[in-house]
Amino acid sequence: MSELAAYCEDLARRARAAARTLATAAETQKNQWLEKTAAALDSHADEILRANERDLAAAWSSGLSSAQIDRLQLSTDRLQTAATGLREIAALPDPVGRVLDSSVRPNGLRLRKVGVPLGVIFFIYESRPNVTLDAAGLCVKSGNAIILRGGSEALQSNRALVGIIQRGLGEVGLPTDAVQLVADSDRAAVGHLLRMNQWIDLAIPRGGEDLIRRVAEEARMPVLKHYKGNCHVYVDQSADLKMAERIVINAKCQRPGVCNAAESLLVHQTVADSFLPALAEALRQRGVELRGCEQTRRLVSDAKPATDEDYAAEYLDLIMSVRVVADLDEAIDHIARYGSQHSDAIVTNDQAAARRFTAEVDSSAVLVNTSTRFNDGYEFGLGAEIGISTDKFHARGPCGLQELTSYKYIVYGNGQVRE
Amino acid sequence: MSELAAYCEDLARRARAAARTLATAAETQKNQWLEKTAAALDSHADEILRANERDLAAAWSSGLSSAQIDRLQLSTDRLQTAATGLREIAALPDPVGRVLDSSVRPNGLRLRKVGVPLGVIFFIYESRPNVTLDAAGLCVKSGNAIILRGGSEALQSNRALVGIIQRGLGEVGLPTDAVQLVADSDRAAVGHLLRMNQWIDLAIPRGGEDLIRRVAEEARMPVLKHYKGNCHVYVDQSADLKMAERIVINAKCQRPGVCNAAESLLVHQTVADSFLPALAEALRQRGVELRGCEQTRRLVSDAKPATDEDYAAEYLDLIMSVRVVADLDEAIDHIARYGSQHSDAIVTNDQAAARRFTAEVDSSAVLVNTSTRFNDGYEFGLGAEIGISTDKFHARGPCGLQELTSYKYIVYGNGQVRE
Repeated sequence: MSELAAYCEDLARRARAAARTLATAAETQKNQWLEKTAAALDSHADEILRANERDLAAAWSSGLSSAQIDRLQLSTDRLQTAATGLREIAALPDPVGRVLDSSVRPNGLRLRKVGVPLGVIFFIYESRPNVTLDAAGLCVKSGNAIILRGGSEALQSNRALVGIIQRGLGEVGLPTDAVQLVADSDRAAVGHLLRMNQWIDLAIPRGGEDLIRRVAEEARMPVLKHYKGNCHVYVDQSADLKMAERIVINAKCQRPGVCNAAESLLVHQTVADSFLPALAEALRQRGVELRGCEQTRRLVSDAKPATDEDYAAEYLDLIMSVRVVADLDEAIDHIARYGSQHSDAIVTNDQAAARRFTAEVDSSAVLVNTSTRFNDGYEFGLGAEIGISTDKFHARGPCGLQELTSYKYIVYGNGQVRE
Repeated sequence: MSELAAYCEDLARRARAAARTLATAAETQKNQWLEKTAAALDSHADEILRANERDLAAAWSSGLSSAQIDRLQLSTDRLQTAATGLREIAALPDPVGRVLDSSVRPNGLRLRKVGVPLGVIFFIYESRPNVTLDAAGLCVKSGNAIILRGGSEALQSNRALVGIIQRGLGEVGLPTDAVQLVADSDRAAVGHLLRMNQWIDLAIPRGGEDLIRRVAEEARMPVLKHYKGNCHVYVDQSADLKMAERIVINAKCQRPGVCNAAESLLVHQTVADSFLPALAEALRQRGVELRGCEQTRRLVSDAKPATDEDYAAEYLDLIMSVRVVADLDEAIDHIARYGSQHSDAIVTNDQAAARRFTAEVDSSAVLVNTSTRFNDGYEFGLGAEIGISTDKFHARGPCGLQELTSYKYIVYGNGQVRE
């Protein structure tokens, strides 16, 4: 076994041992750790920011883009936001031990179905060091050990943060191996860990589609994926067109770079004339480029022609594809063909149309008369999230504390045997 | 593309199209199909049994074991049992559309989290043709299309059954492609289908450990696994020893060839003298061979020495490994090291010991003062099951209708946009 493989195995074994202890840790102990870590982000801000400066200096000299550098940068503000995030996780109910179901069987057996941690989570992410804190907070609170693999450009920052995290774990009597950082920036480490399904229960990649696809292909354990969000707004013939305009503008422009932003607009043919020209003008003022079907282009002179690739694209940018559809069926078919099962909205005053849309569109969130941007753990009241799953297996949509757990059946009898 | 690959792709595409229709099918329609199919098993019994006879004749001449032939054999009795199974599924509540959670957010958004089908399920199983009916019944009721790949030795029987199933689907207006059989017995078909994650959402292998492992390695979609059950009974120092004896005998002997039968017995050292010799005699009378630690062998003269392999083994036979342990900790550690996280029981009158055991043993079912044999969908009141999952991801333990579903969020607003 290579030195790197041995190092990875040691990490994974330690995580597994820590997970066993953490699985039965008291809620108060986990919350104490969250509070302590939040406080330490303030009291040790200098230490963290110095480490972050070393990463930033290296990033400048290796020619990272300014967007990448912005994502890498920490500040007292960003640390305070992260501390608030940890305190919010402390305030959420413990998902471990929650009773999901209970019954008494005819033979007197008393059954409870209760939440349990998944075990060991391998989290692979890109350069935002604040994600280190979110992920560790969510995993420890849900009783899971976590192995963190951040971007190599954030290694110094992550080392400083994980140092503080581990000190806190030790101080409250939790195993320090509950949160570990892959300190070797060799890419092969990821490959080694993805094969260790005897110790690691779940891999969560967070980043671009390529990263997620590579992890999904290599992993021998389950992977919680969040692929792209190609989200639609469909404006029905009975829509309140003022409301529709507000919703489209919000879904497209409020934060175009995120997965629940809308990428595609579908408009019922009977309202296209009265809706599209005014909407296009409002979007134009906000810098949005439209790419549309022929009917769209007749109504919006500066719209470019949309290709099949446009209808399938997640632009993450101020671009929107537009299509005029004959009816609700064509809208639903279009979404089934091009969508990514993330978040899709209908604007309508027709209850039957809303019911059909919400029943037939198979996305993690289907929304009526509101913006796709609301498909989010905080907005849904689930608290912080580790990602928005585009899978249907295990967890779908926003993944918070509950989605990081499994369950077991606890059965009490008084001597029953099976006949 | 080879002819076989094209055939598999056609199956998968048809299943995907059928799944879309089936996802919104009315419960009454699905139940009608279940009743109709149950009735057809009676009215078309001759046709089915003739097909089964062709399989049996081929099985005899190819030298299958009598156990294998017994599993392959259908009879009017077995068909009646299968019909009852389908009627029981009809009586279970529809998991599609069930409301898992609901809330109204501070901004007025009304949220519902509702059950939805997974989509297309690829089910790979061995030679019992009655499983064809169970699997089809569970999948159609839960709104999923299913592609069945039974053993080649059951192909004629399965063709006859799927013929009846599809006729019924057509008669009630459901898509006949909702249940399809891989009619080509080429093993390569399985490999092709396991790569088609664009159309197939879940693979469920049901059979030996080798089959499951191969499927898990090849599949590009999630796999619902049920690996082995190395189940334990731990007899605590405060156990009612008469009850303990009844439970151990039941867990070991009532049906030794199934996954929730006990394979390993742990006994607290303070009760070993009074418990083990009498238990060994009772097990001896039932033909059970014991393999024990040194202390066991001092108390049970004919017990063979147990190796590490014995403690890890799923015998599925009248053999049991035995170990005398110093205390509850040693019992829990033993189960963590050798167990398979399936079903583990404690016999005790000490509530604190029961609480620690149920909290610390991480198995799909942890049982107090009752037999491991109860970890079963029917016994838990979940209805028919497609398997007992040893995974922690998605579903754990008995997998019935609910475990064959995912969920989505349905959100109603009145124009809310995100600030």
